[in-house]
Amino acid sequence: MKFSAQQIAAALNGVIVGNTNVEVSSISKIEEGKKGSISFLANPKYTHFIYSTNASIVIVNDDFEPTTTLNTTLIKVKNAENAFAQLLEMYNQVKLAKTGISKHAFIHESATVGKNVYVGEFAVVAENAKIGDNAKIYPQVYVGENVSIGENTTLFAGVKIYSDGVIGADCIIHSGTVIGSDGFRFALQDGGKKVPQIGNVVIEDNVELGSNCSIDRATIGSTILRSGVKLDNLVHIAHNVEIKENSYLAANNVIAGSTTIGKNCMFSGQVGIVGHLTIADNTIIAAQSGISKSITTEGTAVMGSPAMEVTKYRKNYIHFRNLSSIVDKLYELEKTLLGKKV
Amino acid sequence: MKFSAQQIAAALNGVIVGNTNVEVSSISKIEEGKKGSISFLANPKYTHFIYSTNASIVIVNDDFEPTTTLNTTLIKVKNAENAFAQLLEMYNQVKLAKTGISKHAFIHESATVGKNVYVGEFAVVAENAKIGDNAKIYPQVYVGENVSIGENTTLFAGVKIYSDGVIGADCIIHSGTVIGSDGFRFALQDGGKKVPQIGNVVIEDNVELGSNCSIDRATIGSTILRSGVKLDNLVHIAHNVEIKENSYLAANNVIAGSTTIGKNCMFSGQVGIVGHLTIADNTIIAAQSGISKSITTEGTAVMGSPAMEVTKYRKNYIHFRNLSSIVDKLYELEKTLLGKKV
Amino acid sequence: MKFSAQQIAAALNGVIVGNTNVEVSSISKIEEGKKGSISFLANPKYTHFIYSTNASIVIVNDDFEPTTTLNTTLIKVKNAENAFAQLLEMYNQVKLAKTGISKHAFIHESATVGKNVYVGEFAVVAENAKIGDNAKIYPQVYVGENVSIGENTTLFAGVKIYSDGVIGADCIIHSGTVIGSDGFRFALQDGGKKVPQIGNVVIEDNVELGSNCSIDRATIGSTILRSGVKLDNLVHIAHNVEIKENSYLAANNVIAGSTTIGKNCMFSGQVGIVGHLTIADNTIIAAQSGISKSITTEGTAVMGSPAMEVTKYRKNYIHFRNLSSIVDKLYELEKTLLGKKV
Repeated sequence: MKFSAQQIAAALNGVIVGNTNVEVSSISKIEEGKKGSISFLANPKYTHFIYSTNASIVIVNDDFEPTTTLNTTLIKVKNAENAFAQLLEMYNQVKLAKTGISKHAFIHESATVGKNVYVGEFAVVAENAKIGDNAKIYPQVYVGENVSIGENTTLFAGVKIYSDGVIGADCIIHSGTVIGSDGFRFALQDGGKKVPQIGNVVIEDNVELGSNCSIDRATIGSTILRSGVKLDNLVHIAHNVEIKENSYLAANNVIAGSTTIGKNCMFSGQVGIVGHLTIADNTIIAAQSGISKSITTEGTAVMGSPAMEVTKYRKNYIHFRNLSSIVDKLYELEKTLLGKKV
Repeated sequence: MKFSAQQIAAALNGVIVGNTNVEVSSISKIEEGKKGSISFLANPKYTHFIYSTNASIVIVNDDFEPTTTLNTTLIKVKNAENAFAQLLEMYNQVKLAKTGISKHAFIHESATVGKNVYVGEFAVVAENAKIGDNAKIYPQVYVGENVSIGENTTLFAGVKIYSDGVIGADCIIHSGTVIGSDGFRFALQDGGKKVPQIGNVVIEDNVELGSNCSIDRATIGSTILRSGVKLDNLVHIAHNVEIKENSYLAANNVIAGSTTIGKNCMFSGQVGIVGHLTIADNTIIAAQSGISKSITTEGTAVMGSPAMEVTKYRKNYIHFRNLSSIVDKLYELEKTLLGKKV
Repeated sequence: MKFSAQQIAAALNGVIVGNTNVEVSSISKIEEGKKGSISFLANPKYTHFIYSTNASIVIVNDDFEPTTTLNTTLIKVKNAENAFAQLLEMYNQVKLAKTGISKHAFIHESATVGKNVYVGEFAVVAENAKIGDNAKIYPQVYVGENVSIGENTTLFAGVKIYSDGVIGADCIIHSGTVIGSDGFRFALQDGGKKVPQIGNVVIEDNVELGSNCSIDRATIGSTILRSGVKLDNLVHIAHNVEIKENSYLAANNVIAGSTTIGKNCMFSGQVGIVGHLTIADNTIIAAQSGISKSITTEGTAVMGSPAMEVTKYRKNYIHFRNLSSIVDKLYELEKTLLGKKV
């Protein structure tokens, strides 16, 4: 795919300063720019790179004026960062465009497949499953019985969805992620007998799940990820959890059973939350924190394991860092005043 | 699948109070009960829901007497919770019943497949592998060379078992779980040369493994999970680990090489245990704890990283929560008594 | 596979003491040695086992002299441990030898496949992918568009590599590992709109990745694992991370975006590192530590979350273990001296 400065300026509604015919076929960072690539400059910290970059085109804010001559062609736009993001999106749309049902896929005769769908090699679409229009089912994906996949949703290679899962529209689910495995429930008073897990998983629209996540089905009812939820890689969501709209869980969060997480939360990596809690909207949790009690006040930021309010944690932790000298001071004080031998 | 109150009461050995002909086709919680569903009431906290539920049938303990009229049909049994669990199990058995070898599976001619086995699409059963009677091998599973799978065991879609793995009877292994990958051993004194991993993994009967677990083969000998062991999702078991009977490891436990874990242990989520330790029977470990020394006394409960006895940890942690004010008190004391300026 | 003492001694350049014709077909630890197996003795702690082992052959250092009669045949070599490792390697090479393209694999007509390659059942090699000589692509692997796989590299069953990934020579990647999934980046100021991830992953030579790892592609540019890097299972590597030569990350490390890790680092299990940091060469990080600041001094060893220098952490943590009695002492001191009532 080759594009000229003219084509790109037209797409981004920009103005060319330089060679309107120069062509690019790849995208680079300004500090790593190669001939034939396009880059952007938005952060003033990087301005000096524009004088040495080999990128053939650089998108800049329209108030950018070079202080010396440039070897690159500029495309001036209102907001260089946004325009570049727009360009990346266009690039990705072309790159990830896929359609057609592979003859090496297995689609059960009772399944329903929408228009303009991609189903890759060795994918399985089981009994009564429904695939919405424009969905992309990559190779080796398993779509279990009665599963429904919304429009425009992408399941990358090897995603596994157990029976009865409901996936909304415009979702992206990365490779290795498992949806609908059994919750971890055993009747200890009954010799560890398995508690049957007959619920399902419901994922609303515009949700993205990273790779190798594990989302368990509900014991009864549904484990629910609401619209706009984003999970990074290796996240565990236990049975009957609900995560409300637009919450972000970074890599390797572990959420135990029947916990409800509010809207617009932001959890850093490796956070753990015990079961049967309620976490308020807009909660912020620092990396590696452990949450053992419900958080009821919206907008709280916590840290530690077990967690406390973040500024309190930091204050206490500073003293922990000096605990050895603090204790020395205590012993010294004791010695001086009581004549005790330490 | 539709069942009448009469059929269900017969199966559960219960007594109907209400409409014996009412039919249900799904299962619900009492607080979410819909017409056409069956629910149960055991916890007195939920009793008030029985007067408003839309569930068509509710299973109750035989001493339950409504205080006003009901819109639902009751099935009275000795123990409502157990009867409901029994019902769920029956439901799941019907739902998960599967048999037959897909013509899209690959089964090596040297492999042995028992009676009444299910092998799904694009599953691979490699050289000399043995599949026991009534086993269920879901689509896209890989059963490596010389692997043996016991009777009634289920491998959900995409499970991967490396060569020489031995899986017992009545096991359930969830999607994405990998059994028999190489242990993480390199000869640092020899430029990081890989130490060959030629052992295997042995999993006894009645073991359940969650999704996306990683169980490494032994360097020499076997990594062993004894009968009744249950692992939640995203658990790491390194080479040469042994976990004894009926121990439970919650999500994302990480057990390093050559450690032995006793019987009937209960570990919460995100626990880490270093290598070459021995953990006594009945040990309880709190979430996110890190175990760096063997635990020799049975029934110990520990917490923290590195871990200590749980009540001791909690006591110390209360002081950590107040460390800032404790230190203030120390400085104040010092100032008052010595006239020192802080 | 059966081998005689004579064959093995010849391969290892050793001297036989005992029966030159005895044959073995398996490998065991000396303490678990069975008839027909070969073992070794290097650690003096295990010397007593040689008098009771049932192993048919034991490899020993050439200065070993039994103090009583033995039932086993010895092969004396310069260094028993190395010789045994060499034997294991030979065994594994025979055992893991595989070649040939399964007729059940899917290889796109535009893909290039080298000499002596193995491609297993239901593997996918997509458009323009390149597979180097002697590479082994196990069943159900996905090799995406434009991916290149170096010579002698092994991808075990179910590995998924997204488009444009570059994998070097002599690499081993274990089952369930995903390479090239999207980085976790959303424009929060723009309603959580996805930031397109158009970079790739580059893995150099002689890298080993455990099972169920997640290695994200770069937003722009490359996520890079340099030669000799080794990752254990369930490791998360975010977008634009670079890990330099010969660093070792144990199980379940979580490395956030754009962080650079130096050469020859050693991280224990469950370590977390936040984004945009630089970690110096030869850094050692204790298990479960959380790194929130760059480490600039080579050879530093750290511990804790947030981490500090390891000896400092241990010293402080000893006081934390006794915090309750330390605080008691403070209160006592206060009471004694000020007559305050606690």
